[in-house]
Amino acid sequence: MDDMLTLGRQVLALQPFSVLLGAELTGFSEGSAELKVPIKDTLKQQHGFLHGGVISYAADNALTYVGGSVLGPAVVTSEFKINYMRPATGDFIIARATVIHAGKNQAVCRCDIYAVTGTAENLCATAQGTITKNGQAQK
Amino acid sequence: MDDMLTLGRQVLALQPFSVLLGAELTGFSEGSAELKVPIKDTLKQQHGFLHGGVISYAADNALTYVGGSVLGPAVVTSEFKINYMRPATGDFIIARATVIHAGKNQAVCRCDIYAVTGTAENLCATAQGTITKNGQAQK
Amino acid sequence: MDDMLTLGRQVLALQPFSVLLGAELTGFSEGSAELKVPIKDTLKQQHGFLHGGVISYAADNALTYVGGSVLGPAVVTSEFKINYMRPATGDFIIARATVIHAGKNQAVCRCDIYAVTGTAENLCATAQGTITKNGQAQK
Amino acid sequence: MDDMLTLGRQVLALQPFSVLLGAELTGFSEGSAELKVPIKDTLKQQHGFLHGGVISYAADNALTYVGGSVLGPAVVTSEFKINYMRPATGDFIIARATVIHAGKNQAVCRCDIYAVTGTAENLCATAQGTITKNGQAQK
Repeated sequence: MDDMLTLGRQVLALQPFSVLLGAELTGFSEGSAELKVPIKDTLKQQHGFLHGGVISYAADNALTYVGGSVLGPAVVTSEFKINYMRPATGDFIIARATVIHAGKNQAVCRCDIYAVTGTAENLCATAQGTITKNGQAQK
Repeated sequence: MDDMLTLGRQVLALQPFSVLLGAELTGFSEGSAELKVPIKDTLKQQHGFLHGGVISYAADNALTYVGGSVLGPAVVTSEFKINYMRPATGDFIIARATVIHAGKNQAVCRCDIYAVTGTAENLCATAQGTITKNGQAQK
Repeated sequence: MDDMLTLGRQVLALQPFSVLLGAELTGFSEGSAELKVPIKDTLKQQHGFLHGGVISYAADNALTYVGGSVLGPAVVTSEFKINYMRPATGDFIIARATVIHAGKNQAVCRCDIYAVTGTAENLCATAQGTITKNGQAQK
Repeated sequence: MDDMLTLGRQVLALQPFSVLLGAELTGFSEGSAELKVPIKDTLKQQHGFLHGGVISYAADNALTYVGGSVLGPAVVTSEFKINYMRPATGDFIIARATVIHAGKNQAVCRCDIYAVTGTAENLCATAQGTITKNGQAQK
């Protein structure tokens, strides 16, 4: 495993909420991040689908990671927008984030979230957002 | 407690993810929904703040509730956008959602999320989104 | 007329596109901006309604103004999201923008766009976005 | 020229605002739309760049076209989000829109807007939005 992924996983292990969800960083390199969350019963809503809040968590976190991959580790998600397209069912979701444009202090990033059953992937949501260096945004 | 809030709480109790987070529906009437989530250690990120994914969960769920308050219970969140403004610290967050415009099949809704410490409230995020009757959207 | 509104109108007069549309700054103070665009034939789409692009222009520009009212004149609109709610018909649209949260380098702002017929106002769209000091964003 | 592009251009010619801007539909097929707008003086802001409102117009209109390419002609843009990444300078902008997911009544679409100088293209903005069949949304 390369150093960047190792470091990214160490950070994820320091996020109690990510640990609670069972999230796993499965890819992390400059301009790319991949986060996996199991579709387990405790993460569902009342109809047996993965709760939308888990999907938005995955989008938010994958976006922050990918922004950090080009801006450095001290970043925050300033904002994002997500469209839900299909209920998420199956074994797990994979959030794949990429950088569309990186500036000095901000990066515009995108994230597609797939529900995976066996080897079949279904796109269930897509997000677009802004990652900002800490201290440069409103925070 | 009125019937609508009682019913809303029953639905929330059927969402394992909401139970996992300790979310509580503190207000629910036509055009208004209020959801409370405790800021506890298991919901934090690596810097000791509430994880952004918990905030986006609260926005997503409060938006769905408020949309359902005018469109009926069979609704989904089609999409939303969230701006994070301050790290959330304190005792709990309160997500307050309102309906901006309700049509036959869709409602455009807004949600402000406050971090509460004692009696002091700080706006930490704001969201805007579309709630759609199930079967009318892409799902 | 106060100095801030006068100054704002001078800037608007320097925007050829705003002049082309016939936009008028009708209010401008710290944390508040109001922009008016006539609903004239040349700005319509094929069904006789004001083109959505005019509404998004009004949102974009009113958001930039209101952000500039708290951050200073050298700002750009980093991003915004708009929900269209009703076709815009009548005499003109009014975009009313406010600041939700202002930080050092960014402001999160909101804008409601009303279609006005005589004295009747109808909310036809709502937007939320981020205004950033020039040089601090990705640009 | 194929029938779909011909039909699309006829519709664009019926939009007075698109005619005013000098917009041209340069591509239109199932799941794809391309709209071109010249960067001329009348469409600029006070710093000599193309006005952001023109870019948001192009995003809005290209998104509506591409949604209509899979849902049929009677569609509206329900909402979209746009991130501006670079000032637009050069000869013209090209908005390229694609469909991410099409359902029965809605399509989630994406649009990248490039500023073109000679043969060099620079991505200047990116948008994501929802196109809805008329009568199914809130309108």
